[in-house]
Amino acid sequence: MSGVRPILEMNAFRKGDATTPALDRRLSNFGAASVLFYRDPIEMVGAKGATMIARDGTRYLDFYNNVPSVGHTHPKVVEAVQRQIATLNTNTRYLVEIVDTYLDALKAYLPSRLTSVVMTCTGSEANDLALRVAQAATGGTGIIVSEAAYHGNTALTTDVSPSALKQSALPDWVVAIAPPGAAAYGTDIAAGFARAVADAIATLKDRGHQPAALLVDSIFSSDGIFSDPPGFLTGAVEEIHKAGGLMIADEVQPGFGRTGTHFWGYGRHGISPDIVTMGKPMGNGFPMAAIAAQPGHLAAFCADVGYFNTFGGNPVAAAAGLAVLEVIREEELMKNAHDVGTLLIAQLRDIAADDARVGDVRGSGLFIGLDLINAQTGVPDPAFTVQMIDAMREAGVMIGAAGRYGATLKIRPPLCLTREEADCFSDAFRKSLRRLSNAHT
Amino acid sequence: MSGVRPILEMNAFRKGDATTPALDRRLSNFGAASVLFYRDPIEMVGAKGATMIARDGTRYLDFYNNVPSVGHTHPKVVEAVQRQIATLNTNTRYLVEIVDTYLDALKAYLPSRLTSVVMTCTGSEANDLALRVAQAATGGTGIIVSEAAYHGNTALTTDVSPSALKQSALPDWVVAIAPPGAAAYGTDIAAGFARAVADAIATLKDRGHQPAALLVDSIFSSDGIFSDPPGFLTGAVEEIHKAGGLMIADEVQPGFGRTGTHFWGYGRHGISPDIVTMGKPMGNGFPMAAIAAQPGHLAAFCADVGYFNTFGGNPVAAAAGLAVLEVIREEELMKNAHDVGTLLIAQLRDIAADDARVGDVRGSGLFIGLDLINAQTGVPDPAFTVQMIDAMREAGVMIGAAGRYGATLKIRPPLCLTREEADCFSDAFRKSLRRLSNAHT
Repeated sequence: MSGVRPILEMNAFRKGDATTPALDRRLSNFGAASVLFYRDPIEMVGAKGATMIARDGTRYLDFYNNVPSVGHTHPKVVEAVQRQIATLNTNTRYLVEIVDTYLDALKAYLPSRLTSVVMTCTGSEANDLALRVAQAATGGTGIIVSEAAYHGNTALTTDVSPSALKQSALPDWVVAIAPPGAAAYGTDIAAGFARAVADAIATLKDRGHQPAALLVDSIFSSDGIFSDPPGFLTGAVEEIHKAGGLMIADEVQPGFGRTGTHFWGYGRHGISPDIVTMGKPMGNGFPMAAIAAQPGHLAAFCADVGYFNTFGGNPVAAAAGLAVLEVIREEELMKNAHDVGTLLIAQLRDIAADDARVGDVRGSGLFIGLDLINAQTGVPDPAFTVQMIDAMREAGVMIGAAGRYGATLKIRPPLCLTREEADCFSDAFRKSLRRLSNAHT
Repeated sequence: MSGVRPILEMNAFRKGDATTPALDRRLSNFGAASVLFYRDPIEMVGAKGATMIARDGTRYLDFYNNVPSVGHTHPKVVEAVQRQIATLNTNTRYLVEIVDTYLDALKAYLPSRLTSVVMTCTGSEANDLALRVAQAATGGTGIIVSEAAYHGNTALTTDVSPSALKQSALPDWVVAIAPPGAAAYGTDIAAGFARAVADAIATLKDRGHQPAALLVDSIFSSDGIFSDPPGFLTGAVEEIHKAGGLMIADEVQPGFGRTGTHFWGYGRHGISPDIVTMGKPMGNGFPMAAIAAQPGHLAAFCADVGYFNTFGGNPVAAAAGLAVLEVIREEELMKNAHDVGTLLIAQLRDIAADDARVGDVRGSGLFIGLDLINAQTGVPDPAFTVQMIDAMREAGVMIGAAGRYGATLKIRPPLCLTREEADCFSDAFRKSLRRLSNAHT
């Protein structure tokens, strides 16, 4: 765990930084749980497509947010929410047609054996439930995650989120393994990652825990984005199945077409998870999330615990979710993510070829990781990353970092990103590198 | 725990009941987590004020839902959501004016020392966080709750929700005490309840757990509604403080004016909680919830765990929440809850005086519990309660049950309920009693 910094607080406002009246007010309202992006946070007043608009009129390209995935304030999603909230907003104790219309539409994208869907409000709630479903279905307790994983903010999901813990160690029923990159596993990532899962299973058993699940975000977002080669998860899934555990695909980050070639991130790996959890982009910002599971697995959990979520599956969420699915299809956003993402990766690799401070560029669709490294030593450079994040802001682009060292730029714009906006990003990135070169070398 | 039935499934659709195509579709989509009200569930198409409208045109008075607390599809809340969702919906990493405007307005109702507010999406998330804040702030682990309490659906909040567990026992760091009624504590409820807390503290210490918190819903909703005498919580709060623990007021049910005389349920007891959690009516159905805590307590938690909630505190939630506060004030809904609630209690006590099947009627504002009992033996009668719930539905009123035996009608309409609607309820109740009398005696 040493060296793993909470990603949430990278490049964030800290006590002692200069404040403004608006910022003072926020800090006074949120207290210790304030998490503000930039040491000099931005006040926002509007947003549209891939652009956010600040109080001072500055327009920023939003590369740090995969929630408004079909574009900020998309008119079709806005209209769906506006219409439904004026008509009926209630809970799932009643039948409401749009809720089941939505679930039928969603399930068309899911593995056919995952017919039971539980609607929640947040990805945290979805993962919290998925872990318990896996434990009830298998009788096991052990969970395997990746080293800088983030799976949520509830007590249970925090226990399986190494990146959220500042001091505490993981509980003994959780084993974290290195993310699937060459740094840990060399050239055969698939074999190395499968071996790591097998070793983690052995560790859990040594501690008296039967494995319940391998829980991974299939794009390994907070680990620093590890997408290639497609298929590398196959052996790991075989290992967890052999040990009697389930494969939970946390699709909160890669789901809903982001990776360009498949609707879900796990699709690139040719695997069929036992449980799928989803959240962030599901309602384009309307709070909604879900898990999809096999009926028998969910029934095993419900035999002991009654589960009901007051706001989960409300018809306004269903309307938002249905509009999101329609927009993804009608605007061919998955194809757009693939095409514009491919262009962007090529542009960034061109830049990397000319600048030793830019290391590996990897990703799929519009989820791209770019390592910033020390030009002399080649090691990850978190301090330089913070400077780049600030320089990019000056150039009108908002972007964050991820990974074990906080030195991987997490390039994650809305799926509606245009080629022109991709060009803007690459220009801003080139300009920021040049500016920091002038200032610091 | 024996005898405590999961409230969620009272009078619900069960496997083997007759289905329709719409119901089949729902059961296939939700699987084992389907929780549908009535054995013959209702399909809803609209709602306004205290009324919900079914597919077949039937209009029902909604007495089973304290979420749309200022009235279903209230135009002011609808308009606020419609406006904000078309403008900006983002996370709290940025400053957005309406978020802090809302928090300032909310904090005006809260104890002045609870200045740190963390916005979440659900009451479950709020209680999950509150428990961990209390544990971090006190260094203790033990939690005291009431016997049929429900505090949420996450792993941690399920552990402190006896009413959600079908088979499992409570973990050893949780002690459940009898709810504050005469059945358990005789005539001096305050002293009895305080003694029960003191005993629970001793039990926790015997088990090696320092007490972290007394967590109660101050109207004891799922326990069966125990509101009187005002002030009975004082001694219990003294006991938990003496033991180094905190008082967490779960205001998900009684908050936002429902009890008629005070904005929060704890206000009737003259106590000042250390942590307040809130949810359901906060956004009139828009998914939002929060905890309010002392800055030092929250900081103790955040020292170890980074907390961020992607959808929590989004500006659309803030707009909804602000509109709710304005409507409560402008329409004097707290006064209305008091006046109409007082009228309703008087009407129901009149009915009780004439019918031995109606036991105690108790409550405050528009949160009223009514015990249905066997006319001969005086014991709670859950079977009769189910019949009454169905008869009330036939009479156009939707109402649910609560309490250890599932034999307490939970009378909880929107706060905008008119005197005419209260009369309708009493008429329907009288008519249902008469109908069942004819059918069964």
